[in-house]
Amino acid sequence: MVRKEHESAEDSLIARYFKPLAADPGAFGLLDDAAILQARGDEIVVTTDAIVEGVHYLAGDPPDTVARKALRVNLSDLAAKGATPAGFVLTLALRAADDSWLAPFTRGLGEDATLFNCPLLGGDTVSTPGPTLISITAFGRVPAGTMVHRGGARPGDRVVVSGTVGDAALGLDILRGGPAAMGLAEDAAGRAMLVGRYRVPQPRNALALAVRDHAHAAMDVSDGLAGDLAKLCAASGVSAVIDAQSIPLSAPAASLLARGTFGIEALVSGGDDYEILCAIPENRFEAFAREAGQAGVTVASIGTVIAGSSPPQFLDAQGAQIALKRLSYSHF
Amino acid sequence: MVRKEHESAEDSLIARYFKPLAADPGAFGLLDDAAILQARGDEIVVTTDAIVEGVHYLAGDPPDTVARKALRVNLSDLAAKGATPAGFVLTLALRAADDSWLAPFTRGLGEDATLFNCPLLGGDTVSTPGPTLISITAFGRVPAGTMVHRGGARPGDRVVVSGTVGDAALGLDILRGGPAAMGLAEDAAGRAMLVGRYRVPQPRNALALAVRDHAHAAMDVSDGLAGDLAKLCAASGVSAVIDAQSIPLSAPAASLLARGTFGIEALVSGGDDYEILCAIPENRFEAFAREAGQAGVTVASIGTVIAGSSPPQFLDAQGAQIALKRLSYSHF
Repeated sequence: MVRKEHESAEDSLIARYFKPLAADPGAFGLLDDAAILQARGDEIVVTTDAIVEGVHYLAGDPPDTVARKALRVNLSDLAAKGATPAGFVLTLALRAADDSWLAPFTRGLGEDATLFNCPLLGGDTVSTPGPTLISITAFGRVPAGTMVHRGGARPGDRVVVSGTVGDAALGLDILRGGPAAMGLAEDAAGRAMLVGRYRVPQPRNALALAVRDHAHAAMDVSDGLAGDLAKLCAASGVSAVIDAQSIPLSAPAASLLARGTFGIEALVSGGDDYEILCAIPENRFEAFAREAGQAGVTVASIGTVIAGSSPPQFLDAQGAQIALKRLSYSHF
Repeated sequence: MVRKEHESAEDSLIARYFKPLAADPGAFGLLDDAAILQARGDEIVVTTDAIVEGVHYLAGDPPDTVARKALRVNLSDLAAKGATPAGFVLTLALRAADDSWLAPFTRGLGEDATLFNCPLLGGDTVSTPGPTLISITAFGRVPAGTMVHRGGARPGDRVVVSGTVGDAALGLDILRGGPAAMGLAEDAAGRAMLVGRYRVPQPRNALALAVRDHAHAAMDVSDGLAGDLAKLCAASGVSAVIDAQSIPLSAPAASLLARGTFGIEALVSGGDDYEILCAIPENRFEAFAREAGQAGVTVASIGTVIAGSSPPQFLDAQGAQIALKRLSYSHF
C-alpha cells in the first residue's frame, strides 16, 4: 500500500523502511492494496490526527521524535476512549526520500509500534513541494458499547487529570528561546524534560482499562486543559469548578510558576499535554486512582463537575476566579 | 474529531461543512475524539491514499472534483479487493479556511459519500503553509477470508480490465495543453470526457461482488496498466501475454491512437485509470462478464496469465512485442 509515483524508488523505500514495521498478518507485508483489520468480536475505534512540519513540530526536531509524536497523539485518543490499540495506517508527504531522515523516522515509528502493540497496517507515501506532513489513522478495540465518550460527565463527578499539565507548552517555549529557557538556565535536566514532553508525548494507554471501567466521560488534553475541559463540559451539558492549586505540575513547571515566569493560566491553556482528562463518579475515584497507580500512571483530582452551562471556573488559593484570556493554545 | 488550532473557526467549520456529512451513528456527529466502526461480523478492509495539489491534481481543478477524486481513489481500492464501502476518515491540510473552496469541496464529498454509501466517520483539519493535501483512509467490509489479493493469479487465467484505459492520462495532457488537445481540437465532447476521467475517476464498486466471487487476483489500475499488471504478476509469481489490440479504449482515445498522436505504450503507462485489473479463471469468465454487465460495468479480456517471472508482454496485431519505455506514469 505504501506507494509513490517513482516505482523503483518506492519499492526500495517500502522494502527498506516500512516492511519491517508491518509484522501484523493483516498488513500482508505491504504488498497488497489494502489491509485487513480484525474486529475479534469488539467494536473498532477509529481516530485520525495529522502533524505538519513547522506547525505541530519544529523543522529541526529529531526525525525519530517526529515519528513518535505522530503515532502517540493518536494513541492518546485511543487511551482516552478506553480502547486497546489495534494498528494504524500512515500517510507520509515528503519533499524527497531522504535516507538520513527516513531511517531514524521509521526506527522511532517501529519502536513505538512495538512498545504500544500497535502495528503498521499500511500507508501511502506521496511527494509534496511543501512541508513534511504525517497523517495517522489509528485503530483500537473496545467491547461493544464501552467506548468512553466526551458527553457523559454528571454533576458531582470528580474532574481528574493524569500526569502533569503545561510541560509541553514550556518545552516549546524553551525551543523557541522564550522566558522558560531563561528561567531554567541553571536546570539543564528540567529543560530537557520539558522539551522531551513537547517532542515525545507520553500517551496514557496504560490507563485505558481504568478509564473504560470507571469514567463517565473522557478525552485527551491536546489543545490545553482549560479549553479541552470546556469541550468536555459542553458535550456533557455541565460545568465545572477547578481548584488551580491541585492541578498537577512537574517540578520545573512548578519552579517557573513559583518565580513568576509564567502564571497558571499559561499552563492550563498550553497545548500538547496528551494527558487524560476524565469525569469520575465520586464513589469510583478511589478504585480509579488505585488502578491508575497499579498501571504506573499518576492521576489527580482537580475539581468537581457542577450543573450549569457556563464555562468551567478555575479558582485560586483564595477562591477567586482566575481570568483566562484564552482557553486553548494556538500554534498560529 | 475534525480539529484545528483556532477553536472557534474550527467549531464553525465542522458545524457548517463536515457535520452534515457525518450521518453515520458511529461518527457521533464529529463531537467526540473518535468514531466507532462496526464490523458486523465481517472483516474490515482498510486502505489509505492521499492526493496533493499540484502533484495528484491541478491547482485550478474545481474543488468538488478534488473531493470526489480524493474519496474515489480509495473507493477504487475497496472495489478491487471485493469490499463493500463502510466509511472513511479525512485529513485535510489547508493554507486557509476558504469558504469558496470548502463549500464546493464538502458538497462534492458529501454527494459521493451518499452515492457510494460510504459515510464520513471523522477527520482532522490542519493548517499548512504548503499545498492543499487530502488524505483519506477508507474502510470496507468483506466476509472473513474473502478479500481478493494481488497474489492469486494462476497460469491460464484471463487478464481482464474494466472500462477503458488511458483516458485520464489524455485528460491531463489536454489540461496541460499537450498534443491531445490539438488532436481533439474539433471534438469538445471528447476533450471534456477525457478531462472528466482525469478529474473524477469512476471507481468500479458495482463490480466488487463479481470480483470477490470470481477473481483469483485483483488490483485497481492507478499507476498505469502495464506497471500495475507487472505488480500483480510479480505478487502472483506469474507472467502474462497481452494482446494490445484488445485493450479497451474510449472513442477519443482510439481516435488519437488512429491518427498517431499517441501510441498504445503511452496509454498503457498512463496513470489515474482507476479501473479494475483482475485475473479470472477461464471457466469463470463468462459468469464474470455477465455479472459485470448486470452491474453496468464493461469488462474486456485482454490476455492470458502464463507461467514465468518475466514482465508481462504486450503484443501488437502482428504478434510482435511492443517496447514499453516506462511501465508507469510519473507525475514528476
